[in-house]
Amino acid sequence: MPILEMHLMKGRTEEQKCNAAKAVTEALVSSLGVKRESVRILITEHGEHDFFVSGMTMKERSQAQLSAQQSAQQPLNAEGK
Amino acid sequence: MPILEMHLMKGRTEEQKCNAAKAVTEALVSSLGVKRESVRILITEHGEHDFFVSGMTMKERSQAQLSAQQSAQQPLNAEGK
Amino acid sequence: MPILEMHLMKGRTEEQKCNAAKAVTEALVSSLGVKRESVRILITEHGEHDFFVSGMTMKERSQAQLSAQQSAQQPLNAEGK
Amino acid sequence: MPILEMHLMKGRTEEQKCNAAKAVTEALVSSLGVKRESVRILITEHGEHDFFVSGMTMKERSQAQLSAQQSAQQPLNAEGK
Amino acid sequence: MPILEMHLMKGRTEEQKCNAAKAVTEALVSSLGVKRESVRILITEHGEHDFFVSGMTMKERSQAQLSAQQSAQQPLNAEGK
Amino acid sequence: MPILEMHLMKGRTEEQKCNAAKAVTEALVSSLGVKRESVRILITEHGEHDFFVSGMTMKERSQAQLSAQQSAQQPLNAEGK
Repeated sequence: MPILEMHLMKGRTEEQKCNAAKAVTEALVSSLGVKRESVRILITEHGEHDFFVSGMTMKERSQAQLSAQQSAQQPLNAEGK
Repeated sequence: MPILEMHLMKGRTEEQKCNAAKAVTEALVSSLGVKRESVRILITEHGEHDFFVSGMTMKERSQAQLSAQQSAQQPLNAEGK
Repeated sequence: MPILEMHLMKGRTEEQKCNAAKAVTEALVSSLGVKRESVRILITEHGEHDFFVSGMTMKERSQAQLSAQQSAQQPLNAEGK
Repeated sequence: MPILEMHLMKGRTEEQKCNAAKAVTEALVSSLGVKRESVRILITEHGEHDFFVSGMTMKERSQAQLSAQQSAQQPLNAEGK
Repeated sequence: MPILEMHLMKGRTEEQKCNAAKAVTEALVSSLGVKRESVRILITEHGEHDFFVSGMTMKERSQAQLSAQQSAQQPLNAEGK
Repeated sequence: MPILEMHLMKGRTEEQKCNAAKAVTEALVSSLGVKRESVRILITEHGEHDFFVSGMTMKERSQAQLSAQQSAQQPLNAEGK
């Protein structure tokens, strides 16, 4: 211990994952004073349809936020006529 | 929070997973009174040889249950002679 | 399957947890068509110092948001003099 | 319950995973006295760049250990001249 | 690796948990051929209101099964009059 | 995402856990380029009888290592007579 399960969206390169693991390991060594060899990190990657916030995928969420912004601007445009 | 890890057998469509995530999110919003945006769901899918009940895959288990049923019926047939 | 690990902040009553488990189970039965008996839910509760967003506990985060709001209002007040 | 999540390196055959699941199930039945049908095992497999000890993949770690051994032997060789 | 997360109902003694960990470790060593030192087991215990099957705690489920058995016997008794 | 489950031995102070969460969050922001607000960390703490390496608790393991060292030294002492 510490043992970490790290959930990431798919799409990182091997190099990025290695860098993240090294950085997190160092962070734990310096903040908790644990031995470097005791830190174990497991990465699990999730595809677009395997992660949801508010019941929406990241894509659906971006679209919902964009729509919300556009409809917030529309009354203003309407007034501007 | 809530943060959910949902383990499923492989084979669901993207639409089914989206529907499940939406339904579970609504269930948590209405039962716990949490904000919709605070609900995060992570899906991990498992293949046939990555899930075991009684030390058997679902396929082995179905066959075992079928065999048990057949051998339960056989003495009856034997008697029926 | 489905098997769910549900992470919650500490502080819910037993009744709330039961209600959440029932609601989530029904959500999965109706959205995925699984048998009710196949749904297993494990709850793990986390204390204030066991959950972090942006490296902050929920308490630290509320205070940070409050401070940000107050400092955003201050220039306006200053101008208003 | 018991419900087990078993993290393995990728590369085991289906037969090996089945054997492991059966052996672990029997181990739990005999040591805890649980019913065989109550034991559920979920396997998650991790690739070379999804598991880190000391911030290193297994490959990097083997190379680091080999280098350490070689540099430990070198002073001896140097002395041997 | 293997790294196992083992979810158990609360109530086992320390000795039972040690025995289970030893038995599972031996099971993995003999079935997968891994080194004993590479096997890590994490136990998480869950209270009565932190584990649900069919949306019911184990207690609710036992009562539901008992009720189902009793109501299955009642028509027979009624007929027997 | 990233969402991290961090398993620790019991016994850290709240301050140590906060420091670890901050350090790990910064490590992920700088190595993966993710937004600070997207990093969620869940800590689960395990008691002495809830974590096993080689089927032994940390205490049993220390004693086993000590015994191994002592018995490794004994033949030498015996020879030294």
